[in-house]
Order: sequence, then structure tokens, then C-alpha cells
Amino acid sequence: MSEVRATKRRRGRPRGGAGDTRERILSAATAEFAEAGYDGATMRAIAARADVDAALVHHYFGTKADLFGATIDTPIRPDIAIRTLLNGPLEDLGERIVRFVLDSWEQADVRRRGLVLLRAGLSSRATAPVLAGFLARELLERIADRVGTPDAALRASLAASQIAGLLVTRYILRLPAMRAASVDDLVAWLAPTVQRYLTGDQTPS
Amino acid sequence: MSEVRATKRRRGRPRGGAGDTRERILSAATAEFAEAGYDGATMRAIAARADVDAALVHHYFGTKADLFGATIDTPIRPDIAIRTLLNGPLEDLGERIVRFVLDSWEQADVRRRGLVLLRAGLSSRATAPVLAGFLARELLERIADRVGTPDAALRASLAASQIAGLLVTRYILRLPAMRAASVDDLVAWLAPTVQRYLTGDQTPS
Repeated sequence: MSEVRATKRRRGRPRGGAGDTRERILSAATAEFAEAGYDGATMRAIAARADVDAALVHHYFGTKADLFGATIDTPIRPDIAIRTLLNGPLEDLGERIVRFVLDSWEQADVRRRGLVLLRAGLSSRATAPVLAGFLARELLERIADRVGTPDAALRASLAASQIAGLLVTRYILRLPAMRAASVDDLVAWLAPTVQRYLTGDQTPS
Repeated sequence: MSEVRATKRRRGRPRGGAGDTRERILSAATAEFAEAGYDGATMRAIAARADVDAALVHHYFGTKADLFGATIDTPIRPDIAIRTLLNGPLEDLGERIVRFVLDSWEQADVRRRGLVLLRAGLSSRATAPVLAGFLARELLERIADRVGTPDAALRASLAASQIAGLLVTRYILRLPAMRAASVDDLVAWLAPTVQRYLTGDQTPS
């Protein structure tokens, strides 16, 4: 709080309290992510846009991923969840990922806000790169590191393609058979696919 | 042309030529699909909205699928293509589908218009059911018929989930590794997945 007041006094403008500063940083971050993309956006540029010190942005929101998570109002932080998921044996990582995604999206609040994010991320030429940048940097690179093969970037992206298709067909298009299937049934079908992409052969045995 | 004129005279209103009638039917169809969904929309209701005889709608546009194809201005008619794809051996249907989708979307005009359709179909609660209805009725039911097992509806939808994820990650999100991969490489990775969904075991051997 004292930092906020100090900033306010130093800038010499009338402003509201900490809530206003937080909102101003969030607005600046949303604009900066939209313009520069996830990778191009810097905490320094966001701070400049919000007319505050960069230290204050870190103080309020932590890392760039944390700040992005705050701008999209997500009830699940996939970049944090993935660390836990990667912490188990590689040979059933596919199943852990598919089950985590389904268990999360079956919760009404996750699904509701996830749908807003996914629809926004897929709907325009402007928003897709921001979502893609976040996914690439915070999820796919970590998965690829864990997989560790020379073609790991493609493997992680192939896994993402099946997860994206699951979300699109079950929760956006709501194809009747995808809606009707149980989580266990979908895990049984999809986990071997994701696992093959991550650690299996291009030509299945 | 004479039918159009007859209609015009009978209705007794000043109107333009056949081009106007065609456009009026297309507008009526777009509105009807949006309101009633693909399955709910009837040629009769579209004709009534356009204030023409239903026979005229058939005369200009053929089937409901043809008319839907016209409203979305698609350079590829997946409902027609699928008949050709289904006309080969079932054991490599997965490869034929994946290769057809990639070969089509690698063409600039297909990709451009496909992206407009896909973004529109995924972006809102209103448009998703129309796209889903068309996919379900004109593609998935035919694939399921060809597969012929009791769980064929789910199998066809699982195949659709991988195809949807391919389109989303390569053409909308443009994940770098998905962009960089060759068509042959993607076919080699994805065809076995789609084939397993269509004809393989839930638990791979």
C-alpha cells in the first residue's frame, strides 16, 4: 500500500487506492499482451503503460505468467498445474494430462471461464497469437523439456492438438457423442494418443 | 428464370432479377440456420422467410447441405468429399481423411475461407451449434455408417476431435512446431490416431 501511495505522490496526480492501481496494471497488461503478443510483452512495458514502477507490477502480480493468468481471470493456472503433472513418471504423462484437463473442465466455473478464454483465443487473428504464445512458453516448452528428445517440440504440440480437439468437440461444438462419453471412457481413448505423441513411435508397432 | 418471374408476378411486388432472388434466399438461409440450427432449419422455412416457393430454393441450391455450403461460401464441400473418402478400404480411411484435410487446407483459398468459417463456428454460443449440426449430420453420421459398429458415433467424433485439434493448432494458433512440420510428417503421426479411433481398440495392443 505504501508503495502505491508513494507512486501516486511522486506522479502528483489524483488517483484512487490500491484497487485502482491493480486495475490499471491489468488494463495495461491486457493491452500490451494484445499488441506485443505473450512473448513480446515485457513487465517493463506494462509498467510504463500503467504509469507505475515495474517493481510494483511484480509486487502485485508476480511473474509474467501470473499477470497473464490474472488478465484472463482463469480459475485454473495450467502453467502451474503442468509442473505437478510433469512430476510423475514419463510413461503415463499422457494419461495424467488428459485426466487433468477433463477433471478441470468438468467443473462449471473452470468450464465457463475456460470457454470465454478459448473462444476469444480462437476467434480472431489478433487474439490467437497471445493464447498461442502463452501455451508455447508456459506449457509446451516445459513438456518438451521433460520429454527431452530432439523432436520434443513437435511431440508436445501434437499432444496439444489432441487436447485442443477434445476441448473444441466436447465443450464448444458439443458433439453429442463427445458430450455423452464419460471422463473415464475419454481418458481410455485419448490417453494412449497423447502418450504416443510424447514418447511413442511415429509408426505405431 | 421463368419461375422467378412467375413468383414475382404472383406475389405482385417489384423486385430485381434472379440475382436478387438468389441473394434473398441466401440471406433467409443464413438467418434460418442461425436461429433454428442446421438440423432444425427446413427448406420450407427458408423459402417462407425469402418469400419464394420451396421448389425455387431446391431449383437454385439443391439440397440443404448444398444451401448451407453456399451460405458459408466454402471452396470445399466436405459433405461431398467425404463420400469419395469413404469409398476406399476402411483400414486406411484414417490416412485418407488426414491427408485430404491437410492437402485442402494447404491451399490458400481453402485455408482463408476455412478459417473464417472455423473462427465463426468456434467463437460464439450462437454459431457453434450450426457448425456442429452440419458436421454431425453431413460428415459424422456418414463416417459412423461406414464404420458400422455400435460405438461408431463416438468413434467418428473422436476422429473429428483430432482433425479439429490439427486445424486449431496448425492454422489458428499456428504453434511453431505444427507450422514447421511437413504434411507427410503430420500424416504419419495423425493417421494412426484417426485410424485407431475409427476401427482400433480402446486399449491399444
